[in-house]
Amino acid sequence: MADNLFCQKLPVLIKYSDLEERKCSIQVSVDVQIATSPHHRKELVIRLTDENDLFFLYTLKLNEEDFQSLKSQQGLLVDFSSFPQSVIDLLELCLKEEANTVPKFVLHLVTTSKLGVNSGPSHLNVVETNPFKHLTHLSLKLLPGSDTDIKKYLATCLSQLKEYTTKLERSAENKESDLTQRLAQTQQ
Amino acid sequence: MADNLFCQKLPVLIKYSDLEERKCSIQVSVDVQIATSPHHRKELVIRLTDENDLFFLYTLKLNEEDFQSLKSQQGLLVDFSSFPQSVIDLLELCLKEEANTVPKFVLHLVTTSKLGVNSGPSHLNVVETNPFKHLTHLSLKLLPGSDTDIKKYLATCLSQLKEYTTKLERSAENKESDLTQRLAQTQQ
Repeated sequence: MADNLFCQKLPVLIKYSDLEERKCSIQVSVDVQIATSPHHRKELVIRLTDENDLFFLYTLKLNEEDFQSLKSQQGLLVDFSSFPQSVIDLLELCLKEEANTVPKFVLHLVTTSKLGVNSGPSHLNVVETNPFKHLTHLSLKLLPGSDTDIKKYLATCLSQLKEYTTKLERSAENKESDLTQRLAQTQQ
Repeated sequence: MADNLFCQKLPVLIKYSDLEERKCSIQVSVDVQIATSPHHRKELVIRLTDENDLFFLYTLKLNEEDFQSLKSQQGLLVDFSSFPQSVIDLLELCLKEEANTVPKFVLHLVTTSKLGVNSGPSHLNVVETNPFKHLTHLSLKLLPGSDTDIKKYLATCLSQLKEYTTKLERSAENKESDLTQRLAQTQQ
């Protein structure tokens, strides 16, 4: 039971180390779901994927308890129920700034090692650049997907794409036969 | 560099234990590929997948050395270069017998444990049933895919399906605009 609140491709500056970085277009999704184990509770799920690298998967799962510690660490002023929208507002700021040559708000993904190679936790930072300094509005710790996670994620993508393709095949056939029929009738 | 020689859905009787079995339609592919590590050599790759269970993946990779031991164990009379075709001939026998109420040739997948749950090696057997006994023509040891194997396999499927879907979208659009145009011209 997941409720998707946001799903967009966003420019992300991936920083592997102090020396190496590259700009990527990364799919960022924000979901609220009800975790069933150990007991029912709301969870915010933020997921980063890259359609050009199917093994790229970073996830944050945050329940109310985790949020309280994040809130005190980063001095947040919102509560758990409004936090998803606050995150989305920040992401939309970054999206809006995308076209600017010097965007004011940018997303950084700071990771300790190259993707897939024993990568540890990484941080997705929403950074505002003002003339004085880089200001981190929010820093979220994301975990790289394990093989099991990636396997499950790809299976879901594949099922969804299969469903879409089947519908597309059917609708294309219907449209074609409909138009061919109308064409034949008109030509008579 | 893989050369696909055979790819068909075949009826397979999956036997989890002496007590439990179920009949499935399993995709069986036979490929010959050049393995690059540790050095270049030909490899026969047989893969079992199930489109209704995306995590179902069993693989056999057999090089010439493995084949020699299989040949002596099972008293085979063919050599490595003609073995792929012999396997395909047996699979086609099973396919031909599919429609019969009492098929003479059947495929059994004998596995020690339920799929995905710490499953060890399994055996794909080509079994002939004559009035006297079950005669195993060939028994191939297949390994269940690890999470990494399944992840890679699903990524390949997803890429191929994406490519197909993109082509389909384009061709459907072209056909529709072509027919719509012809319809408009005819109606004028």
